[in-house]
Amino acid sequence: MTDRRVYLDHAATTRLLPAAARAWAAAAAQVGNPSSLHTSGRRARRLVEESRESIADDLGVRPSEVVFTSGGTEADNLAVKGFAWLGDPLGRQGSRRRILASPIEHHAVLDAVLWLQEQGQPVEWIPVDALGRVDLDYLQQHLDSDVALCTVMWANNEVGTVQPVADIAAACREAGVPFHSDAVQALGALPLDLTLPGLTSVALSGHKIGAPVGVGALILDRDAALVPLQHGGGQEREVRSGTVDAASIAAFAVAVHEAVTEQVVSAAHMAMLRDRLIEGITGLAPDAVVNGDLVDRLPGNVHVTFPGCEGDALLMLLDAAGVECSTGSACTSGIPEPSHVLIAMGVDPRTARGSLRFSLSRNSTDADVDRVLEVLPAVLDRAARASSPRLRSRV
Amino acid sequence: MTDRRVYLDHAATTRLLPAAARAWAAAAAQVGNPSSLHTSGRRARRLVEESRESIADDLGVRPSEVVFTSGGTEADNLAVKGFAWLGDPLGRQGSRRRILASPIEHHAVLDAVLWLQEQGQPVEWIPVDALGRVDLDYLQQHLDSDVALCTVMWANNEVGTVQPVADIAAACREAGVPFHSDAVQALGALPLDLTLPGLTSVALSGHKIGAPVGVGALILDRDAALVPLQHGGGQEREVRSGTVDAASIAAFAVAVHEAVTEQVVSAAHMAMLRDRLIEGITGLAPDAVVNGDLVDRLPGNVHVTFPGCEGDALLMLLDAAGVECSTGSACTSGIPEPSHVLIAMGVDPRTARGSLRFSLSRNSTDADVDRVLEVLPAVLDRAARASSPRLRSRV
Repeated sequence: MTDRRVYLDHAATTRLLPAAARAWAAAAAQVGNPSSLHTSGRRARRLVEESRESIADDLGVRPSEVVFTSGGTEADNLAVKGFAWLGDPLGRQGSRRRILASPIEHHAVLDAVLWLQEQGQPVEWIPVDALGRVDLDYLQQHLDSDVALCTVMWANNEVGTVQPVADIAAACREAGVPFHSDAVQALGALPLDLTLPGLTSVALSGHKIGAPVGVGALILDRDAALVPLQHGGGQEREVRSGTVDAASIAAFAVAVHEAVTEQVVSAAHMAMLRDRLIEGITGLAPDAVVNGDLVDRLPGNVHVTFPGCEGDALLMLLDAAGVECSTGSACTSGIPEPSHVLIAMGVDPRTARGSLRFSLSRNSTDADVDRVLEVLPAVLDRAARASSPRLRSRV
Repeated sequence: MTDRRVYLDHAATTRLLPAAARAWAAAAAQVGNPSSLHTSGRRARRLVEESRESIADDLGVRPSEVVFTSGGTEADNLAVKGFAWLGDPLGRQGSRRRILASPIEHHAVLDAVLWLQEQGQPVEWIPVDALGRVDLDYLQQHLDSDVALCTVMWANNEVGTVQPVADIAAACREAGVPFHSDAVQALGALPLDLTLPGLTSVALSGHKIGAPVGVGALILDRDAALVPLQHGGGQEREVRSGTVDAASIAAFAVAVHEAVTEQVVSAAHMAMLRDRLIEGITGLAPDAVVNGDLVDRLPGNVHVTFPGCEGDALLMLLDAAGVECSTGSACTSGIPEPSHVLIAMGVDPRTARGSLRFSLSRNSTDADVDRVLEVLPAVLDRAARASSPRLRSRV
């Protein structure tokens, strides 16, 4: 049984749910563009609208507030640029110019904000503490009528810290500032109240919850306006154009329903495994540091730094031992860089590089955790030897 | 057999190819984000790169020139805004500001250009003649070193007119101006030479050639730079971010291969049916006008105006008779507007509203054409009666 592979990288992508696959295949077998007026088009449109209603119902929002996109990255870009451009029409320096953002956002938000900053839009970075929690006082003090957008993710994809979203929303409401939250990692893992007063938009992704890659949504308050990112046929509430992907949307609806209705059970199951894994790892490696908030934390997230190790080396050794996980840091063009999340939390860049992220799903098992704990000692031993100059010189 | 439905709206979307469906299902059954470094991630990456190589090989371009997107609309927006922003960094009035565009572009290009124009970017609309062909002389005279982008579609989605792409590319090359062409309708229907000197980028869509909805590509010259539309992980050549959709890309590769290798046979087959359909329609309705260029025309396009009729009424009557087609015009929020393409070609707006588009695929049959010609007389008769005030008053 030792060659059974263990997948613990669910924050990167999840296995397609059989029911979602069936919904996709059934819809994809039918020809018809939902914008076409004939029978086939209307059938595709009906499927899209039924899926929209199902998702809205599961999330407690209105169907018109569900704007389908090609995924989380597009939803984040649409919100960040759409609100920024509305406040500051393309460099014309409107009255709302500033962007308030956390420095630990997913790259889809972070790089969109950095690009707007490059173009001259002023950005204020909300400090985070050592556990990755945004500074609420700072945020409140900097929310003003000249702010075009405040963006803080619901829960961090690397270290799992959950943000005080209700408090941020309330503060943004008070200041009359649009508030966008990337909830890609939170959906299915946390109870999401998308009716929070002050919450303007939320980005969701299909493939993190068992739907196919290539579909997601921006949940956009019905009273909110933003500038479209993709122009064209105006298919989605005139803020998103492009042929509506009925098959992926049908599969997405299946996955959202399962994620939301099973959330409490899933979270309890994942948290139990998470805590066992954390306990086991810190038992095996007493100098290992668990990053992020241990209380307000994604139930499926285990993010650990092994001082003196290289995360990439650990990842490859674990992979060779049949365990798939992630370093949790962006690896651009093959050059590993320390995670911007850990750096913002004050972790030393050298130390940060020795990090691993294990991310669980509701289908993860005790056997998965056992396997990690079984192979980890040898992996840490090899990694330590590989990174020790004295030992390496003996090879 | 009279209740057999005939689908002649392939310009809107096509039936998923069985082989593409199988490629999708096989890939989607495997977990793994192509950006992940472990075995599952590398397997997904390998599938993406093999698909990219296959598509590049079929299209005669380099693999690095294939930038996967969520579809044609995103590819068009990426090119139009990306080149415009590069020339004119967000309202900073760089040296390259002007956009040269045809007025008969698909909405994905047209509305992106109109939006840039609203933001203050100067736009020059290249006139088209009564057949929908762009004025090459005008284009050449207005290509200058202050032009950020010239965009002219390969073949028109409504009336089927094919543009002199090689001549436009040569003129753009001469002037050192990036040239983008929307080839969404041309792929599989025309021989596409994507190595034409001066051709900078081309937008392609999967679901117009038997791949799923939600995947497409921007073929981008390896030496060309543009500003990304979606920021984030930088997955596609740092110009397009978002989790790479391995399953849809694998299906897209299958469809591109079939479209390209079968193009000559498909085009001959479609042109034969197209000409039979045109001949039949004009035989039945002598006052019907076939729009677009009869020579340089998409082999699967039949676009006809029936004077005195309402296109929407014809469409619904044909649908009731089991024939699915399109009016060929954009229908925004349920209010039918005359086609911007026909208006640019000088067609009277009232007349333009009486138009229908039948679009064939390589799987269309003689029986499909027979069926249209069988039901059309009664449909035209009913439509004429419905639109005649004298007759209507008797109802």
